[in-house]
Amino acid sequence: MTVPVAPLAELRRRLAEVTDLERMAMLLGWDQEVMMPPAGAEWRAQQRATLERLAHDRFVDDRVGELLAAAAPESDLDVDLLRVSRRDFDKARRVPGELVEEMAHAGATGHEAWARARETSDFALFEPHLRRNIELRRRYVACFPEVERPYDALLDDFEPGMRTADAEDALGRMRDGLVPLVEAAPVTADDALVVGGAFPVDAQRQLIATILRQVGVDDQRWRLDDAIHPFAATIAPGDVRLTTRYAEDDLDSIFCTLHEFGHGLYEANIDPALARSPLGTGVSSAVHESQSRLWENMVGRSPGFWRWCFPHLRSAFPERFGGHTWQDVHRAVNVVRPTPIRVSADEVTYGLHVVLRFELELALFEGDLDPADLPDAWRERMRAYLGLEVADDAQGVLQDVHWAEGLFGYFPTYAIGTIISGQLWARLNAQMPDLDERFARGEFASLAEWLSEHVHRHGRRLMPAEIVVRATGSPLDPGPYLDYVRAKLDAASARLIV
Amino acid sequence: MTVPVAPLAELRRRLAEVTDLERMAMLLGWDQEVMMPPAGAEWRAQQRATLERLAHDRFVDDRVGELLAAAAPESDLDVDLLRVSRRDFDKARRVPGELVEEMAHAGATGHEAWARARETSDFALFEPHLRRNIELRRRYVACFPEVERPYDALLDDFEPGMRTADAEDALGRMRDGLVPLVEAAPVTADDALVVGGAFPVDAQRQLIATILRQVGVDDQRWRLDDAIHPFAATIAPGDVRLTTRYAEDDLDSIFCTLHEFGHGLYEANIDPALARSPLGTGVSSAVHESQSRLWENMVGRSPGFWRWCFPHLRSAFPERFGGHTWQDVHRAVNVVRPTPIRVSADEVTYGLHVVLRFELELALFEGDLDPADLPDAWRERMRAYLGLEVADDAQGVLQDVHWAEGLFGYFPTYAIGTIISGQLWARLNAQMPDLDERFARGEFASLAEWLSEHVHRHGRRLMPAEIVVRATGSPLDPGPYLDYVRAKLDAASARLIV
Repeated sequence: MTVPVAPLAELRRRLAEVTDLERMAMLLGWDQEVMMPPAGAEWRAQQRATLERLAHDRFVDDRVGELLAAAAPESDLDVDLLRVSRRDFDKARRVPGELVEEMAHAGATGHEAWARARETSDFALFEPHLRRNIELRRRYVACFPEVERPYDALLDDFEPGMRTADAEDALGRMRDGLVPLVEAAPVTADDALVVGGAFPVDAQRQLIATILRQVGVDDQRWRLDDAIHPFAATIAPGDVRLTTRYAEDDLDSIFCTLHEFGHGLYEANIDPALARSPLGTGVSSAVHESQSRLWENMVGRSPGFWRWCFPHLRSAFPERFGGHTWQDVHRAVNVVRPTPIRVSADEVTYGLHVVLRFELELALFEGDLDPADLPDAWRERMRAYLGLEVADDAQGVLQDVHWAEGLFGYFPTYAIGTIISGQLWARLNAQMPDLDERFARGEFASLAEWLSEHVHRHGRRLMPAEIVVRATGSPLDPGPYLDYVRAKLDAASARLIV
Repeated sequence: MTVPVAPLAELRRRLAEVTDLERMAMLLGWDQEVMMPPAGAEWRAQQRATLERLAHDRFVDDRVGELLAAAAPESDLDVDLLRVSRRDFDKARRVPGELVEEMAHAGATGHEAWARARETSDFALFEPHLRRNIELRRRYVACFPEVERPYDALLDDFEPGMRTADAEDALGRMRDGLVPLVEAAPVTADDALVVGGAFPVDAQRQLIATILRQVGVDDQRWRLDDAIHPFAATIAPGDVRLTTRYAEDDLDSIFCTLHEFGHGLYEANIDPALARSPLGTGVSSAVHESQSRLWENMVGRSPGFWRWCFPHLRSAFPERFGGHTWQDVHRAVNVVRPTPIRVSADEVTYGLHVVLRFELELALFEGDLDPADLPDAWRERMRAYLGLEVADDAQGVLQDVHWAEGLFGYFPTYAIGTIISGQLWARLNAQMPDLDERFARGEFASLAEWLSEHVHRHGRRLMPAEIVVRATGSPLDPGPYLDYVRAKLDAASARLIV
């Protein structure tokens, strides 16, 4: 005799299984970037495809629909689990399997074409693939006829619940605030102390190990490896993996590692009760990015951090920093200097790179921008926002991979994350006025605990907008971030005048 | 309109998917031993269980049975695929899921009890778990009522097609040949040159990298990592991963690495047309072990290998080997000295450790040996075969994990593999009389090619017994292995007399 299983119990088991498969797909991705011998690539692509298809099939199964309809929640946690799972299920069921496959295929083909186009700086090679990606995304959008604006459907995949109008408002205000600040930024500032090498990689590795230990990384739960395109992958609550990259000629590895640490810490601190369920991961791309950018910039470029870190930096590179002070380093890592390349941008101009991309992709979907006119539109905005002339399309519209893979709706989350990090930072400093002093003592635990309490532990139990309001006291608002940038630039100007 | 898929095509796709899942389970295992932070363990166990259950469920599905019945082969390869898959399917369907779970659970519990029992050398702590494992394996055997002898069903899982009587005959002849040879082995032989350290691990690593490059390992398709219990894991034809271990005080890392290389080379050389199918892996435990032991012992302890390797060994450890010759090292790595511990045994006495275990587990299943009498039976045979007194059960019957996990029928494959390696070696030397000279020149490719042609490439297309007959010209026969050992010991005695 088979004992009947309650729908809720069966649902939990099914969702745990799907979550396991998704985590394993993540491990396969990590392994591919970090460990796999190159000749494994073609096989790995098939293994990942098998796993992802299986995870998808087992989630969108009719039985899951029946269970979602029949399950009776026994706790608040169950209520959240059912709400989030029903939302995920409804979205996943709307999109035909053939369209998912077509999008994946066009993304892969687009990626290849983009790589060739970028090499020769020939946008025409890429244009038909971009058109195809846009066309397929329009069909995707059509699966959600209830949305007010087409872009809403794209944005919702990365920022659940956010509307295009919210993003337009926030990024527009960010742009209007940043453009004059960048124009007025001191042009005589000098970052030569931290660029132009040589910073031996072994010494960088040791320094980064010291920093990570201090911010709370231990060997029991964490790994750090090298990767060409750094990322963080959380395989399980006790298995958080960061990657970073090192260049002999600058110290970007510090900021890159702190960035990935921010992502990893978020996942590591999610309530363990949510593990093996759809609730047990970060709630959105922007909230994730708020954590990585907070550690990379608000912490990593703060006076307190450098008061603590400088002695370690000096012993890593004694010849370079022997005659210098922490203030010199702090100044150098905060220099603002526009560059046409997003991934090389400084903390302040970075936001404008993102705004530009958001505005252009929105115009592709909702405005009258034709893909053929994209390079010119790019150049115009680069001039308007950053005062830069783009040398060629390789350094312009072809620099990022996102559109080549059909990723639309993702770019704005970089800026929204930055905006949220500004709100969190303002709230944190209001509640812990001695935060910078704590950093100077090497005390980062109170920051980590605050973030855990107010952001991390919830996983997906709250919607992103709820997390922002509860943690910061107000809805999405670029004001605090702009204030933070303004204060930083004022201080830099004052130093130059003195 | 859905285009109907031919049963064969659908079957191939299903089997490819199951194979992908099995390979991913292997990757998860590799990652767990080699990369995973310790705190990931409990989650990993769940992830692996999910993946293994899914792979099993998707294979034993009714639909697979229908496809196996309906599929019409289009090539010889299809004929083999259908034959092997039908055999696997029939075996898998016979065993109820509950029994599989009970065995897995008892194995895990048994493992824990065994670890505690071994720590205190208290067999009584372990005995009830051993009884339970045996009882469950009797129920497993009962799923195959057609077998002549109960042990046949256990053996078949590791050596498809082999009967207990075959193993009894081969291991009995091996035992009768080895016991007098071990008794007569020179007792004055000295291995002090290669044990007792100190061999700095960094120098060992470099030496092993040199050896692996020479035998054919490249970074495109292979990895080598550290593991406490070394193993080889083939994730895909282009992704072969070896592990090894290093101790400061001996050079076992060389033999351990060559052993795992033998396993890896087998999988790496399987016909790529068999990839992503049940045919694309090694055919049996013994044939696999024949490859690992051939590289570890026949190659790794040969004169030619040490003529080539000695200069590299000397530059790795100049102080140790400065005043020595390759002959000194060759002699030292071939010393025969009985020890009560299997994993520390030399090449020659190793087989007797295995025979002892095979005879005891056979008596547990088919004879009148009660688990309570196992420690005494162990001591008796240790005395008879190796002339050794066992100090306590930790160094006796409790030394190996296999029975604790319910692994019965596996031990004899170690000895059968050794026997096959002897047959392969005799055939190889008959066909390439200058093989040892080739090794002396650092030329191992012709050996690898011969093994690939006669053993590796077939995957599971031939049964193990067919591979042995085709490759060596005769069925399973311990004669050539005993001749090999006799010649080696005669040469050692002759040296001592001179």
